[in-house]
Amino acid sequence: MLGKLLDNVRQRHPLVHNITNYVTVNDCANILLACGGSPIMADDMGEAEEITALCGGLVLNLGTLNARTIPAMLAAGIKANELGHPAVLDPVGAGASRLRTDTALRLVEQVRFAVIRGNISEIKTLALGGGSTQGVDADVGDAVTKDTLEEAVRFAKGFAQKTGAVIAITGAIDIVADGERAFCIFNGHPMMSSVTGTGCQLSAMTAAYVTANPDRPLEATAAAVCAMGVCGELAQQRMGEQDGNSSYRNYIIDAVYRLDGETLERHANYQIL
Amino acid sequence: MLGKLLDNVRQRHPLVHNITNYVTVNDCANILLACGGSPIMADDMGEAEEITALCGGLVLNLGTLNARTIPAMLAAGIKANELGHPAVLDPVGAGASRLRTDTALRLVEQVRFAVIRGNISEIKTLALGGGSTQGVDADVGDAVTKDTLEEAVRFAKGFAQKTGAVIAITGAIDIVADGERAFCIFNGHPMMSSVTGTGCQLSAMTAAYVTANPDRPLEATAAAVCAMGVCGELAQQRMGEQDGNSSYRNYIIDAVYRLDGETLERHANYQIL
Amino acid sequence: MLGKLLDNVRQRHPLVHNITNYVTVNDCANILLACGGSPIMADDMGEAEEITALCGGLVLNLGTLNARTIPAMLAAGIKANELGHPAVLDPVGAGASRLRTDTALRLVEQVRFAVIRGNISEIKTLALGGGSTQGVDADVGDAVTKDTLEEAVRFAKGFAQKTGAVIAITGAIDIVADGERAFCIFNGHPMMSSVTGTGCQLSAMTAAYVTANPDRPLEATAAAVCAMGVCGELAQQRMGEQDGNSSYRNYIIDAVYRLDGETLERHANYQIL
Repeated sequence: MLGKLLDNVRQRHPLVHNITNYVTVNDCANILLACGGSPIMADDMGEAEEITALCGGLVLNLGTLNARTIPAMLAAGIKANELGHPAVLDPVGAGASRLRTDTALRLVEQVRFAVIRGNISEIKTLALGGGSTQGVDADVGDAVTKDTLEEAVRFAKGFAQKTGAVIAITGAIDIVADGERAFCIFNGHPMMSSVTGTGCQLSAMTAAYVTANPDRPLEATAAAVCAMGVCGELAQQRMGEQDGNSSYRNYIIDAVYRLDGETLERHANYQIL
Repeated sequence: MLGKLLDNVRQRHPLVHNITNYVTVNDCANILLACGGSPIMADDMGEAEEITALCGGLVLNLGTLNARTIPAMLAAGIKANELGHPAVLDPVGAGASRLRTDTALRLVEQVRFAVIRGNISEIKTLALGGGSTQGVDADVGDAVTKDTLEEAVRFAKGFAQKTGAVIAITGAIDIVADGERAFCIFNGHPMMSSVTGTGCQLSAMTAAYVTANPDRPLEATAAAVCAMGVCGELAQQRMGEQDGNSSYRNYIIDAVYRLDGETLERHANYQIL
Repeated sequence: MLGKLLDNVRQRHPLVHNITNYVTVNDCANILLACGGSPIMADDMGEAEEITALCGGLVLNLGTLNARTIPAMLAAGIKANELGHPAVLDPVGAGASRLRTDTALRLVEQVRFAVIRGNISEIKTLALGGGSTQGVDADVGDAVTKDTLEEAVRFAKGFAQKTGAVIAITGAIDIVADGERAFCIFNGHPMMSSVTGTGCQLSAMTAAYVTANPDRPLEATAAAVCAMGVCGELAQQRMGEQDGNSSYRNYIIDAVYRLDGETLERHANYQIL
């Protein structure tokens, strides 16, 4: 099933509009090309809606957030909703500053996201930050482990019900949940956190997957998360004794470029709760 | 002849001012260093003219265009004209939004470019967009193939006559034309389109070539386009079975770093029409 | 001693706030992760102080300087001073435009830096630019060589006394000085100048080193400069016959990722004047 979702990305070449940070933007563009999509980066209010309309999907990423691009994010998100294009939110740094938290909350309020992807701390900030915590388990921990998995799944499903979005919480164990079901994904490698922007890259790739598989946002997100994790594993196996995080970055994107549906199926390691 | 033009870049170390997008800017800087030039990136109105004056050449690239940098682009372009420095326009995304199209047209109106480099769709947008289509073959197709080559060459020469710029239309076949002559270049590899920003990189490198060879803008542009294509081929030959588009990106820049005049001459594949 | 300073970075994982340029920002983030630190990039006035407060150290880098981020730089610098967090200034391009020179001078005036790192030309601009040149040897040359080393050391110590900052002048020979002592460092490789942003990367890494070693800013800066130079050497030894500056960039960051205290001690090549 996941393999088919990957194949759809390669066949449909989804065009994804990215309003994103300048730290990891090049890697986001290259991973979109690697997985079979195409990137357009455009963050000016003067063209945001037009570019959104031209594309099939949208990513709003809050890294290096600044006052100039917030209105463009809102306009692009609202336009994507009007057109029925899937929008992905990556609330980078929500909780780290009021600007990021407030902007993330405002986006969730005004835009209907197909997927919200972040780490547990960012997602908790969104879930709790609005003040309206009904249905949200405020006690969910700061890391998802085997012991806290059930609790975290409950939290993710609750926030998915509240927002209508697929919630992807990534970390040592990844959770991808809608209101009913959750994929708990065990792929990936700890060294991925030594490369800047693997999360941003995953959000961009997720947009390609949900755009190419519009009727299956939960499974498409799970496929993207598995694909990233599997590629992190394959890239790790390729590491030579002089390689470090810079080569690892290249190898991960290379692995995404090479990944086919069959390999994804064979290596994907998840359970559905 | 092309080899000599490359050697001039390595000997004269042209300093190139780039006002460019934040997606591919790092690769543009590294390819400028690789080919023998030096990059300066500066996009604020408060210093654009000064930096242009300090440099030998200028690139204006419209990727991630925003309201803040448009006046800086205009000022830098006009200053380059005053000083007789060659300016290169890369109208990334012209045709994709009104902001990009209008800005590209305004730049072409107010700045005399030594070279305008884009894909066929961007160049057609510029040629047709002003409303004044005399001398422009509006029927030129959306891809340059062997069958449509003559027509595309006619189009490129016409737009070169109109603007006074060398027109570089890059794609599967590249056309580099002034009003009289056109280089049709068959170098390159299809996988280059799976790396973000090979076009931006070529525009930056073109600026280095025309700056180091001020009396021969047509040939210098053709040399840069051949060099990029040859390096795309050499990099492709280096690809291992686990390599993907991220390693390919590195190999292309590496090949530019290693390229000498003799190798360029030996691999350059073009005809003059 | 240098090895212990490196180990402290790996053990203490300093979080570094970067307000920096969009050309080399990705490499700065990856080298911070490589050396054992963590990066946060945030340049909007609306969050600069909060992010500074969250982090242990700060870098202000003037590449692609623009009007929007100057107030954020000032605010972040002042906040870092209030909190006793070390701040590093990289005055990229000081002397190349009035905007950069004036901003650099204003920052030095209003913020107490732990370290100022630049090339000889940038540091001279800062030392002379304020008009107050007492204690500054205006005759220091434009490159530090064995012949001019003593003169340059005198200059660096004088500027260190005046500013209270550790002054790091990097080039073929690097000088790291406070008012009393200077490390003259002979590590590094000429090819490092063919990679964009090795200076920016060093400034980011220096912030991690001084943050993890708050009581020894001189030695911590010297350790960072030696580490960068040693990694430039190790990366050079790894170069294959098809490798160029793009692979070299990766190999340098890889080497930083792999570097341990013992290797740093063994390869560090300096004298104290």
